[in-house]
Amino acid sequence: MFSIGNKFRLTVFGQSHSAAIGGVIEGIPAGTVLDEDAIARFMARRAPGQALTTPRRENDRPQILSGVADGRTCGAPLAFTIENTNIRSHDYERIRDVPRPMHSDYAAAIKFGGANDIRGGGQFSGRLTAPICFAGAIAAQLLADRQVTIGAHISSIGSVEDSRFDPAGVCAADLRALSGMEFPALSDEAGRAFRKLIAEVRDAGDSVGGTVECAAVGVPAGIGDPMFSGIENLLARALFAIPAIKGVEFGAGFEAARLRGSDHNDPFEMAADGSVRTRTNRHGGILGGITTGMPLVFRVAIKPTPSIALEQDSVSLSERRNVRLAIEGRHDPCIVPRALPAVEAVTALVLADLIAIPAR
Amino acid sequence: MFSIGNKFRLTVFGQSHSAAIGGVIEGIPAGTVLDEDAIARFMARRAPGQALTTPRRENDRPQILSGVADGRTCGAPLAFTIENTNIRSHDYERIRDVPRPMHSDYAAAIKFGGANDIRGGGQFSGRLTAPICFAGAIAAQLLADRQVTIGAHISSIGSVEDSRFDPAGVCAADLRALSGMEFPALSDEAGRAFRKLIAEVRDAGDSVGGTVECAAVGVPAGIGDPMFSGIENLLARALFAIPAIKGVEFGAGFEAARLRGSDHNDPFEMAADGSVRTRTNRHGGILGGITTGMPLVFRVAIKPTPSIALEQDSVSLSERRNVRLAIEGRHDPCIVPRALPAVEAVTALVLADLIAIPAR
Amino acid sequence: MFSIGNKFRLTVFGQSHSAAIGGVIEGIPAGTVLDEDAIARFMARRAPGQALTTPRRENDRPQILSGVADGRTCGAPLAFTIENTNIRSHDYERIRDVPRPMHSDYAAAIKFGGANDIRGGGQFSGRLTAPICFAGAIAAQLLADRQVTIGAHISSIGSVEDSRFDPAGVCAADLRALSGMEFPALSDEAGRAFRKLIAEVRDAGDSVGGTVECAAVGVPAGIGDPMFSGIENLLARALFAIPAIKGVEFGAGFEAARLRGSDHNDPFEMAADGSVRTRTNRHGGILGGITTGMPLVFRVAIKPTPSIALEQDSVSLSERRNVRLAIEGRHDPCIVPRALPAVEAVTALVLADLIAIPAR
Amino acid sequence: MFSIGNKFRLTVFGQSHSAAIGGVIEGIPAGTVLDEDAIARFMARRAPGQALTTPRRENDRPQILSGVADGRTCGAPLAFTIENTNIRSHDYERIRDVPRPMHSDYAAAIKFGGANDIRGGGQFSGRLTAPICFAGAIAAQLLADRQVTIGAHISSIGSVEDSRFDPAGVCAADLRALSGMEFPALSDEAGRAFRKLIAEVRDAGDSVGGTVECAAVGVPAGIGDPMFSGIENLLARALFAIPAIKGVEFGAGFEAARLRGSDHNDPFEMAADGSVRTRTNRHGGILGGITTGMPLVFRVAIKPTPSIALEQDSVSLSERRNVRLAIEGRHDPCIVPRALPAVEAVTALVLADLIAIPAR
Repeated sequence: MFSIGNKFRLTVFGQSHSAAIGGVIEGIPAGTVLDEDAIARFMARRAPGQALTTPRRENDRPQILSGVADGRTCGAPLAFTIENTNIRSHDYERIRDVPRPMHSDYAAAIKFGGANDIRGGGQFSGRLTAPICFAGAIAAQLLADRQVTIGAHISSIGSVEDSRFDPAGVCAADLRALSGMEFPALSDEAGRAFRKLIAEVRDAGDSVGGTVECAAVGVPAGIGDPMFSGIENLLARALFAIPAIKGVEFGAGFEAARLRGSDHNDPFEMAADGSVRTRTNRHGGILGGITTGMPLVFRVAIKPTPSIALEQDSVSLSERRNVRLAIEGRHDPCIVPRALPAVEAVTALVLADLIAIPAR
Repeated sequence: MFSIGNKFRLTVFGQSHSAAIGGVIEGIPAGTVLDEDAIARFMARRAPGQALTTPRRENDRPQILSGVADGRTCGAPLAFTIENTNIRSHDYERIRDVPRPMHSDYAAAIKFGGANDIRGGGQFSGRLTAPICFAGAIAAQLLADRQVTIGAHISSIGSVEDSRFDPAGVCAADLRALSGMEFPALSDEAGRAFRKLIAEVRDAGDSVGGTVECAAVGVPAGIGDPMFSGIENLLARALFAIPAIKGVEFGAGFEAARLRGSDHNDPFEMAADGSVRTRTNRHGGILGGITTGMPLVFRVAIKPTPSIALEQDSVSLSERRNVRLAIEGRHDPCIVPRALPAVEAVTALVLADLIAIPAR
Repeated sequence: MFSIGNKFRLTVFGQSHSAAIGGVIEGIPAGTVLDEDAIARFMARRAPGQALTTPRRENDRPQILSGVADGRTCGAPLAFTIENTNIRSHDYERIRDVPRPMHSDYAAAIKFGGANDIRGGGQFSGRLTAPICFAGAIAAQLLADRQVTIGAHISSIGSVEDSRFDPAGVCAADLRALSGMEFPALSDEAGRAFRKLIAEVRDAGDSVGGTVECAAVGVPAGIGDPMFSGIENLLARALFAIPAIKGVEFGAGFEAARLRGSDHNDPFEMAADGSVRTRTNRHGGILGGITTGMPLVFRVAIKPTPSIALEQDSVSLSERRNVRLAIEGRHDPCIVPRALPAVEAVTALVLADLIAIPAR
Repeated sequence: MFSIGNKFRLTVFGQSHSAAIGGVIEGIPAGTVLDEDAIARFMARRAPGQALTTPRRENDRPQILSGVADGRTCGAPLAFTIENTNIRSHDYERIRDVPRPMHSDYAAAIKFGGANDIRGGGQFSGRLTAPICFAGAIAAQLLADRQVTIGAHISSIGSVEDSRFDPAGVCAADLRALSGMEFPALSDEAGRAFRKLIAEVRDAGDSVGGTVECAAVGVPAGIGDPMFSGIENLLARALFAIPAIKGVEFGAGFEAARLRGSDHNDPFEMAADGSVRTRTNRHGGILGGITTGMPLVFRVAIKPTPSIALEQDSVSLSERRNVRLAIEGRHDPCIVPRALPAVEAVTALVLADLIAIPAR
């Protein structure tokens, strides 16, 4: 279904070209004054119209329909919408007949018997991350009240790599510093190289993938359930809701698979303040599905934007034959910078559900 | 919670040293004759007592308590238990005070206020994959009736790599051939190298991680929901229930993040039999969360066994000081071969829930 | 939470005086052409502005925001809103301080720490049955395609009673005939007596309760799960979402508690068409939580409208003392006629979830 | 499905004649020392072998398989079994062919395609209330720690009525006094009359229904969610899991439907201790789905035991013709006394889930 969370739950709706997209958020504690500026800033980070991204200008100003009274939440579900404006007409019938490679067109056509909304990608559009970011910004606010901070940087685009978080030492200030950057990176050099690569790829009519590394600090130890509801289970499930994500790894992740235990194990030690910590953090803050109090650290793999200007092979579903397809319009040559706030958002949704909602 | 699935649901219970472990399976269609031999074979694949694995001999013979009458399922939940026998006494109080690096001991102590069952890892024990395999074997039987076959091989241990599945061409026979191997590998050479490496690591008192590549063929196109309930979301959530898994990638996965769209996109083409397929399968059989009819292909990263014979740094929780810890007993130097059937099992659980249970 | 259903799910949002109320419906089969006239007729049945009901004229014209493309459902969640217009200003601060007897004011104030939306009853308003009726009308359409018909009549208001359905003989035509009536009753005499009683009660500044009897015919045998997910469990849970409902009984219900088994048991018999039926239907179409193929028949008890013109005792929460309270404005003297379509609607939601949605 | 609850969840399994019945309880706070005596006393109340009940002696001693270590709960799911012993052989094939009136035999045969376990009623057996009572006893223990007490009495059998709880004044001591009685009744006279009536009915080869009134005191105000997850919704859903329950009413219930608002509304008043209460409690402690702090009071209708010695009409499913059926064996002439503790148990399960489990 289109919901995530138990105590703090988001239900998402909308298609790229429907009247509106939006969501319903259940579980915001009554009496919360929403930080509208923080929400607007968060949403602006994923908005298009920035350098090197698709020129469609989205009017991503959410309208709150319910759940707020007298300037604060009232305990009722908070429904919100974002209008779909500036919709350009295309000949979408061509796409319906000739599925675009690496898009969901064909899978959706089979699933929905051809009734899927093909316009602008329909419900599969990256635009659906806007409601996720709106709800994620509220979740982040609730988490901030509990001293939990989430942040992410672009860890690679194509073969250009940024450095990595120091997983045992990353702090809230490090994470907050990233949120104002157009190409959030730990090194300025990487940021510049990312920009240069994306421009090249765009000029070549091509696209490129990348990775995002995300961290959450301040998460208390002891959160998460073993087995099917551990932090890794819940985050992974949520992260794959972001279009184009094809991989998730926690802590040392796939690198751990190459290591020996003696190189991988994180020794426990007494911290200067008398608390227990691990000297290194290859476990990414999670052991047995449960938080250890160390920073949560994970990475996601984001595939290249499927829409490219170069002509591609496909089929005509009506004529049952191979055809060539040229996709018109302009598209993000790299979705990574815009996916990044969505990664933070779903992380906030998952963590808020676990730690930011009182028992009743 | 400890359940997974909607129409076909497994609830798991037990600790390493409780009276029994087991599970409750809801949703098996009434009238199903369970293939007990197939179940026993499946479970034998994860059982210890094999070459190079921990010598504790588990009596993994499940006892069915309910859900079956006259030799077939009767529509009631199928509860089953596996007795915990051959339990050896240890000085577990030491572990309670000095958490083992990379184990869940510390996180669990915080979460459960010290009341967690520390014996043999308690509910975090890899032994809990036995009920998962039992249920997975039943799920696999239901899927086989729909011509869906699941199989996996060890794609790497440490830095030794097997070749990869041909993601566009892997077939049921390929997968079935793997299920009888002690070190399931596509190349005999890799299998031998795996065995050699594990023996070395064992002799060094160390452990080593690895990766498993899993495929499912015969899955029809159009399965899975967009957003939070796509195939990737559901499989990822389920896979992280297997202890030691730290990463999941679908199709080209993290490699996709390095590619350009023109190199990554899978062209559609008409197959010889008149059906639509993709020429390559870097999408791993899933687009937009929905199956395309191509083989599902994904890999998981498995960390090195945390228990090693080498002495390690830890802390005494009672004395609040750093101490050295030596873990006694013998342990699997590499959990990858035994995690492999569990990977297949959770894959079967997820797919059976989606495609093997009638609407009513 | 504010959702109901698994495969066909409704999430409701809104308060009486928020910008809008509405809902999100998941699971409508893609390609469904909504019968807008039938939906409008259904919603008109619960709309105010009819004889003897509150004069606030609601503009209950729903706007569909998503989930429809090219005039048919597209497989995405169908979100819809109903604007809240014609909102009259009241001195709601008085109600916040002096809770109205038998309203949710006090309970909500405690639950939400005083942040609840008090205007017009907030999220507790009977107006929230409008989105339920919208979704219920769609569910009814899906059920009609499977020859399932739902209908209800007012079985009593105060001490005035209509006759009862013949539980073993009620048919679809009987049910459809009721849907056009302002006071749906089996006997014209009862309808006239209901109208007369409500007018008297209104003139006395008082209110009155009643019961609704609902039936569903055409439901196949074998639907529903034993234990916690039987038809009675699911219907009862759903029905209590309708404000003012305080009791539910299936088949002979509370009368069964007075009977001996020999008077209560329904004998099986072969029907003329060769099918198995029961001669009588005191079981209300459900045995062991599962449908028998006989008509589903149940009744709900609806309490008198809490808002009455007569002065009542209450307390001032701020002054911690007893006070007298006079509720201003005009209110429905009897909510039963408007609750009736909501009873049908939630019945349709529950049954559609169970029988109208294909497995995938 | 066979589960109930979110944070405190019970999954039930078993059939009357399977190897065992039992359940899995998730969410018991780690470190809880179970009060085994209290559990045994609670379960003894529903056990057969008492005066006037069926002579099958159940060995209802539960065995705990997991979830406990060192004498206290450890945070893992608590699985338990109750062996099915003393099973007498019957000619169940006759029942499979000739469904017993008012039993689930026919509905189950259709649902499960004839594969249902017919022996002793299979999964529909009243015996399945044993695991519910076991879990309910644990829930009651958790609630007792929060000063919440649940109790019930037989409010009627056939046309013999006990008096009712004083809904505004019932206290914990009143409820505890009932738990030791064989026929829990507020008046001794009613208790004697119940016993006399049941003996008469038994001697006549017949059975009789009744009602149970249940109360919970000490429940704080502000518990429950509006709409689909109010206290009434959740309790009603749970209560219908008890075989033979056909109606539920809260507070004044069906009587409310006969009243005018001025007679039904409960005035608020300041209590002597400075708290807010209602002078009367026709609302049964729930308004808008949310608790008010007044006692929860509700009643359930229980149908006559379907199994009677008198010959009845049924059909032969194989021969497709009407036949006469005589049910052999001895059966409870009145299930009400044994259903009563199950009513308390499910009430405890629902309330514990809402108020007895910490946020993490």
